[in-house]
Amino acid sequence: MPDHVYRSIELTGSSRKGMEDAIQNAIARAAKTTPKLRWFEVVETRGHIEDDAVAHWQVTIKVGYHLDD
Amino acid sequence: MPDHVYRSIELTGSSRKGMEDAIQNAIARAAKTTPKLRWFEVVETRGHIEDDAVAHWQVTIKVGYHLDD
Amino acid sequence: MPDHVYRSIELTGSSRKGMEDAIQNAIARAAKTTPKLRWFEVVETRGHIEDDAVAHWQVTIKVGYHLDD
Amino acid sequence: MPDHVYRSIELTGSSRKGMEDAIQNAIARAAKTTPKLRWFEVVETRGHIEDDAVAHWQVTIKVGYHLDD
Amino acid sequence: MPDHVYRSIELTGSSRKGMEDAIQNAIARAAKTTPKLRWFEVVETRGHIEDDAVAHWQVTIKVGYHLDD
Amino acid sequence: MPDHVYRSIELTGSSRKGMEDAIQNAIARAAKTTPKLRWFEVVETRGHIEDDAVAHWQVTIKVGYHLDD
Amino acid sequence: MPDHVYRSIELTGSSRKGMEDAIQNAIARAAKTTPKLRWFEVVETRGHIEDDAVAHWQVTIKVGYHLDD
Amino acid sequence: MPDHVYRSIELTGSSRKGMEDAIQNAIARAAKTTPKLRWFEVVETRGHIEDDAVAHWQVTIKVGYHLDD
Amino acid sequence: MPDHVYRSIELTGSSRKGMEDAIQNAIARAAKTTPKLRWFEVVETRGHIEDDAVAHWQVTIKVGYHLDD
Amino acid sequence: MPDHVYRSIELTGSSRKGMEDAIQNAIARAAKTTPKLRWFEVVETRGHIEDDAVAHWQVTIKVGYHLDD
Amino acid sequence: MPDHVYRSIELTGSSRKGMEDAIQNAIARAAKTTPKLRWFEVVETRGHIEDDAVAHWQVTIKVGYHLDD
Amino acid sequence: MPDHVYRSIELTGSSRKGMEDAIQNAIARAAKTTPKLRWFEVVETRGHIEDDAVAHWQVTIKVGYHLDD
Repeated sequence: MPDHVYRSIELTGSSRKGMEDAIQNAIARAAKTTPKLRWFEVVETRGHIEDDAVAHWQVTIKVGYHLDD
Repeated sequence: MPDHVYRSIELTGSSRKGMEDAIQNAIARAAKTTPKLRWFEVVETRGHIEDDAVAHWQVTIKVGYHLDD
Repeated sequence: MPDHVYRSIELTGSSRKGMEDAIQNAIARAAKTTPKLRWFEVVETRGHIEDDAVAHWQVTIKVGYHLDD
Repeated sequence: MPDHVYRSIELTGSSRKGMEDAIQNAIARAAKTTPKLRWFEVVETRGHIEDDAVAHWQVTIKVGYHLDD
Repeated sequence: MPDHVYRSIELTGSSRKGMEDAIQNAIARAAKTTPKLRWFEVVETRGHIEDDAVAHWQVTIKVGYHLDD
Repeated sequence: MPDHVYRSIELTGSSRKGMEDAIQNAIARAAKTTPKLRWFEVVETRGHIEDDAVAHWQVTIKVGYHLDD
Repeated sequence: MPDHVYRSIELTGSSRKGMEDAIQNAIARAAKTTPKLRWFEVVETRGHIEDDAVAHWQVTIKVGYHLDD
Repeated sequence: MPDHVYRSIELTGSSRKGMEDAIQNAIARAAKTTPKLRWFEVVETRGHIEDDAVAHWQVTIKVGYHLDD
Repeated sequence: MPDHVYRSIELTGSSRKGMEDAIQNAIARAAKTTPKLRWFEVVETRGHIEDDAVAHWQVTIKVGYHLDD
Repeated sequence: MPDHVYRSIELTGSSRKGMEDAIQNAIARAAKTTPKLRWFEVVETRGHIEDDAVAHWQVTIKVGYHLDD
Repeated sequence: MPDHVYRSIELTGSSRKGMEDAIQNAIARAAKTTPKLRWFEVVETRGHIEDDAVAHWQVTIKVGYHLDD
Repeated sequence: MPDHVYRSIELTGSSRKGMEDAIQNAIARAAKTTPKLRWFEVVETRGHIEDDAVAHWQVTIKVGYHLDD
């Protein structure tokens, strides 16, 4: 069994619905160009406020994927 | 266009429902006395446990707002 | 009133549903063997990705409990 | 029971006597204008040296208080 | 000589000219309402990009001031 | 001489007297069930405030002990 | 309005003139191949010394840009 | 497939041979009493010096294991 | 002499042999598609455990390379 | 008035009495060979345990002093 | 080619002009007694405020130099 | 038994062979001028890459030694 190498990239997903949806949006967008996504890790959670409420949830994640040999 | 200055304050919101509701509670309370809230950033997520389950979600955030010129 | 001592342990809960459910799972499991759980603090939020979406949410928490005198 | 919101502010107390007295001084001064102080957390401990000994202990703390509904 | 207490607040100054000007802007604005500013510490340096160049420098600082006895 | 293995656990001691007493309380309690405690390291110092003064000092420490071979 | 996704990459710009020029150089170079750069954040500031003075200022930044839908 | 819960504990392994051997020693010792060890993460690398050379390598790791349902 | 710009990417190499081999594997894989690699920095060291011993060493590194002018 | 330059060095003081005495010991020892000590900052607080109580308090500090022109 | 060893020391330079001048002042002073300075890294940026403006910029750096064999 | 004071200095050792050899080189060089070295702690692990492989391992350590009374 060979020794694998992974790469991770940093993305910020945004959503009007909530934190988990922001993460799902970032992963779905990354998957369009990067196959074999394997894991993520939350780096930072922020948001924009409009009219005294959260308007956009913004979650920054590291996403890791497998590099082909 | 002038150069703006922002201030950020640290708040802990609490909720029986969940993390996002705790954040919304903190922002709604701050908005009563501080207009022009613009963004937030999660600093820490904690909670109290009662009867072997989360009783209160407590999320500490930094909230930024615009200082009038 | 005596001076209390608490201990905290580190757990990673996992869930297909979301972050809060992963935390609840970890607390429910810990409560089976450790009574008097009092608070938790989120240490890290990660997850596994399958088919371009989050398959498991994995949240690492510190959980504190009271040590009997 | 309503969901509470807390605010925390950062203070540096100073004392010729020691670290705990520096913290007590910061809390006593904050209490003059901010009622309902509830907890503190040490952020940094520093001091000034004169004649080869500590002349002032300076402890920076975050102090949290309850915001009325 | 009494033991002093200081408070620090967090501000983000912004400038089209550069990092030092962003800091000076934040301090000048804070001084309008808060006398006796004594020191600052850089927390974060960010900026907005327009047309492939820095359009606004944004420097977040903690600013400390003396609380009267 | 064999190669030793140590384990460290995280405790929060509490005291009305001060920071050092809170640490001593945590160590004394741990020693009831865990022999061979060897060192500690302060992780966090907090406290509860009542009547505008520190009511309880709470110090979180890591405590290390030797695991028998 | 759709939910946007951003990506950030890490660059180190270098300059004989100063810190701000090093940042501008990194952004200008990135813009050759990556359109829609939106913000940056300083990660680290270093430099090389020659003849007892700073010869090159080296500033590492994260640069964020918008991913097309 | 059920949702799993993991626990992690902190250990310091020591070795006269090197860093990897110190980690292996810590894991081997933990396995005597804790089955189902699954992963580790290096927290800190230290060592004792005797006669101007490293006498003991000391590596602190977090070790995670599966909690039975 | 022109002012250079570097980019760094984050990789996780894995090896059954040890930490240094995991780093070498990550660099060798990155070099297949990215010429002019110049430096690396260790970000995190982890591993998988099987049969009470380290089965895979996993080292996450940042790798920097020169961007052509 | 000229622009001053300061240097800081890292020391660990030890004491059987307590944390403040450990700091005072480190400063008193440094002052024997380094005049013009001006400030300190606590980096880490540890200790050795004997007979289920703290035997030595060990406080690591950075100490700053003025470099003559 | 032999394997080199470097040492780094921590300095705080101060300047009425700005951040880069504070760094240059620290390096120039260190070079009087320490030859072969090779690199620096910014650790902290602070300053004193007088009359509602920055009076002194204070930048703390680590400076590295080559130790002769 | 007197209360001891220790000092720690920061060194970067370099080696073509590996991480442990880089640490040993730094300690051996420091011991030429500083007797009574007692412990070290790894601060950072980096390296230079040549021809798609690690050419130099560079490990930065803090080394502590006893100051005579």
